[in-house]
Amino acid sequence: MIISQDASCDLISIAQKTRLAASKLAVLSSEVKNQAIDAIAIALESAKDEILQANITDCEAAAEKIAKPLYKRLQLDEHKLRDAIAGVRDVGKLLDPVGAVQIHREIDTNLILKRITCPLGVLGVIFEARPEAAIQIASLAIKSGNGVILKGGKEAIRSCEAIVKAIKQGLSQTAVNPDAVQLLTTREETLELLKLDKYVDLIIPRGSNSFVRFVQENTRIPVLGHADGICHLYVDKAADIAKAVTITIDSKTQYPAACNAIETLLVHSSIAATFLPKVADALQKANVELRGEKRSREILPNIVAATEEDWETEYSDLILSIKIVDSLEEAIAHINDYGSRHTEAIVTEDVEASETFLALVNAAGVYHNCSTRFADGFRYGFGAEVGISTQQMPPRGPVGLEGLVTYKYQMIGDGQVVSTYTGNNAKSFTHRDLK
Amino acid sequence: MIISQDASCDLISIAQKTRLAASKLAVLSSEVKNQAIDAIAIALESAKDEILQANITDCEAAAEKIAKPLYKRLQLDEHKLRDAIAGVRDVGKLLDPVGAVQIHREIDTNLILKRITCPLGVLGVIFEARPEAAIQIASLAIKSGNGVILKGGKEAIRSCEAIVKAIKQGLSQTAVNPDAVQLLTTREETLELLKLDKYVDLIIPRGSNSFVRFVQENTRIPVLGHADGICHLYVDKAADIAKAVTITIDSKTQYPAACNAIETLLVHSSIAATFLPKVADALQKANVELRGEKRSREILPNIVAATEEDWETEYSDLILSIKIVDSLEEAIAHINDYGSRHTEAIVTEDVEASETFLALVNAAGVYHNCSTRFADGFRYGFGAEVGISTQQMPPRGPVGLEGLVTYKYQMIGDGQVVSTYTGNNAKSFTHRDLK
Repeated sequence: MIISQDASCDLISIAQKTRLAASKLAVLSSEVKNQAIDAIAIALESAKDEILQANITDCEAAAEKIAKPLYKRLQLDEHKLRDAIAGVRDVGKLLDPVGAVQIHREIDTNLILKRITCPLGVLGVIFEARPEAAIQIASLAIKSGNGVILKGGKEAIRSCEAIVKAIKQGLSQTAVNPDAVQLLTTREETLELLKLDKYVDLIIPRGSNSFVRFVQENTRIPVLGHADGICHLYVDKAADIAKAVTITIDSKTQYPAACNAIETLLVHSSIAATFLPKVADALQKANVELRGEKRSREILPNIVAATEEDWETEYSDLILSIKIVDSLEEAIAHINDYGSRHTEAIVTEDVEASETFLALVNAAGVYHNCSTRFADGFRYGFGAEVGISTQQMPPRGPVGLEGLVTYKYQMIGDGQVVSTYTGNNAKSFTHRDLK
Repeated sequence: MIISQDASCDLISIAQKTRLAASKLAVLSSEVKNQAIDAIAIALESAKDEILQANITDCEAAAEKIAKPLYKRLQLDEHKLRDAIAGVRDVGKLLDPVGAVQIHREIDTNLILKRITCPLGVLGVIFEARPEAAIQIASLAIKSGNGVILKGGKEAIRSCEAIVKAIKQGLSQTAVNPDAVQLLTTREETLELLKLDKYVDLIIPRGSNSFVRFVQENTRIPVLGHADGICHLYVDKAADIAKAVTITIDSKTQYPAACNAIETLLVHSSIAATFLPKVADALQKANVELRGEKRSREILPNIVAATEEDWETEYSDLILSIKIVDSLEEAIAHINDYGSRHTEAIVTEDVEASETFLALVNAAGVYHNCSTRFADGFRYGFGAEVGISTQQMPPRGPVGLEGLVTYKYQMIGDGQVVSTYTGNNAKSFTHRDLK
C-alpha cells in the first residue's frame, strides 16, 4: 500500500513536470522543434556504443527467459539503430501538424473566429520489447509539440534508459526542456499511468491484442489503437480469379502477424467450385492451414472443419478460415457481425457490387481489388503512423501525426457581447468565411 | 432481475432494428434525406393538436411534483412547437455532412485512396424535460444519416410519444424506415442503453451537470457533451476598462445558467483598484452576488469571502467569484488549474499578452476582448449544435453536424498487392494528391 502510494506520488510529480515542459514545447515554431529533433539524432549517434552495449546486457539477461520472437524484437543491432536514427531525421521533414487553420470566419465586423490545431498535451506510450520504438515515439511527440511518458517492456529496460538518456542529452542543447520526455521503468507505474487522466491526454499502447484490451479496459484516458484485427476478403461471383488468388495470398501471407492480414475468406457460391481449388493450392504451397465450414469442405474435402470460434479469431498466423456465402448481402452481414472494423476487401469486376460493399461494410478501411495489407500509415502517405484505430469515431484507421493534435477555437473581438445579437433589434451575424 | 433481463432483451431488439434501418439510411442521397425531413415537418404540423394535448396532460400530471424552471421547460405551447417545426425545415437546408471527400490520393497508378465522411451509425440521446428536443434531434439524426434512440424525461413521456409517433408517421411516407427513430420510455432503459456499446456509437446527454457526469461514468460508449462549465474572464493590466465592464456583465448575466457564462473574474493587481469598484457597481445593479479573496475584499470590503471551493464551483446563477492576480502567468495558471477547458477570455489592449493567453490557456475556446457567451454552435455559424465538448480530443467545443459523422478509407485498385512494394526491387508509391 505504502509502496503504491509512493509510486503514485512520484508519478504525479513526473507527469506534472512533463506537462509543464509540454506547455512550453506546445508554442515553439516548427523550426525550433526541428532543431530539437536534429539534436536528438546527433545525440543518439554519439551514444551509439553505450546504447548497443546496454542492449547486449538486456539480451543476455533475457536470453533464457523469453520466447524467440520476443528476443528478436528486443535485439537492437547497429543496423536497426541506424535505421531508427534515420527515422528521426525523417520525422524532422514531416509537415508540422500544429498551427493549421481549419476554420477562419468573420462572425461580425472585427469579430473573428479561427479553429487552429494544437498539441494534445502529454502522451502516455506503453510498448513491449522493441527498444527503438522509444526513439520513433519521442521524435513524433516533439514534432507534434507533445510531452511523452514512455513505458517500455521490462526486458528492454537498460536499452530504453540508454536511449532516453541520449534523447534528454540531445534536448538539453535546445529550446525543448528535456523533461518533455520521460521514461518509466516499473510495472506498477503502468497501472498508475493509466489513472492519470488529469495529466495524460492520450494513451498509445503498442503490444499484443490482450495487452491493448487490458489498457482499454483500465483507463478513462482516450486510447489510440486497436485490440483485434479480424479482416475479411470477399471473393464475389464476378471476381477475376487470377486477381482473387493473388490478393488472397498477399492478404494472408505477406505478413501474417500483422493486424491487417485476413483471417477469413468469404467466397460466393457460384464461383467457389472454380476459385477454391486454385486458391487452396496456392495457399497450401505457402504453408497456410485452411479451415472451412461444411460447404467449403465439399469442395476442399481435406481441410480442417471450421467452428463458430474460427469466425471470431485473429490467428495472427498462417491459418485461414473459409466460408461460402450465397450473396453479396450475406458476405456483408458476416463481415459486419464478425469483423473488428479494421480493413475489409472485395474482389469483383462488378462495379455496382463493389460500390454496395464499400458503402455498407462498417470498417475503417473498405477496399476493392487490392490487398488488405495496404492499411498502413506509411502506405497511405502519412509519413508516420502512430497507431491504427478501429473505433467508430475519428481518428479511425491508420493515424498519422494528425492523431497527436487537437484544436482550439480562438475568437478575437474588440468588445463584442452576446446581448447585441439577441432579443428585439438583434444584430445579425455575418458568418463569412475568410480566405 | 427478470425484469432487467427482459428490458435488456427488448432494448437489444430495438437497437438492432434501429441499426438495420440506419444502415439503409446511411447510403441515401441528400435529396432523399431532405424529403424525409420535410415529411417530418408536415407530419408534426398535422399532429399539432394531438401533441399539444399530450403536453397539457404531461403538465397537469407534473404540476405539483416538479420545480418551476423544469415545469417551464416541460411546457410546449403552439409557439414553441411552431419554432421547433421551423427548426426541422432549417435542418433540411444545412449542408449534408455525409460524403465529404477529405483525402483523395493516388497511391500508385490505378490504386486510389479516398477518405470519405459517413454516418456514425446509431445515436443514443438522453434528454430531460424539454419535449421539443426530440424534434430537433430526430431531424439532425436523419440529416446526418444516423439512426437515433431517444430517451426523454419521464415527465414528458406523453409529449414525446405523440412527437415520435408523428415523426414515424411522416417517415413512413419516405425512403427512410421509421425504425430509424425510436423512443424509450422507462428509466431502467437508460441504464441498459448505456451498456449497448455493440449497437450504439455515440451517447448525447442533455441535462444537468450531475446527469452528464453520471452518463460519462457509466458507459464505454463515447459521450458528446460536458459536465462542468467553469469559465473565467481575465482582466489584464492593459485592459480597456469600459470594454472589461461590458464584457464582464454580458459573460455573467446575459444567461447565467448557460455553461459558457463565467464563474470567476481574475483581475490584474495593477488595474484592480480602478476596475473593481466600477464592475462591482454594475454587477450589483444586475443582482450579482460577489465573492472575493482577501485582496479583492480590501478593495470591495462589502462582498462575501471566497473559499477554495468557490474556484471549483459552477454557480449557474447570479454569483461571481473574484480573484486578484499579479501577472498574466498567474491568471493562466489559475485557469489551467480550475477551468473545465470550456471557454476562457482575456480583456487587454496588449496584443502580446493576448497572444500568450490564447496560446497557453488549455480550453476549447480562448477569447480576446469578447464575451464567453459566444461559445455556441449557432453563433459560430454551424447552423446547428449537437453539444459542446470539453474533452481534449476532437470534436472539441461547440459541435455541429460534423460531430455526428465519422469517416472511412476507401481504396480502389485493380489487383495490387503489398509484396510489389516491399523487399528488393520494391516499387515506389506515387502518393500524389488528386484534385
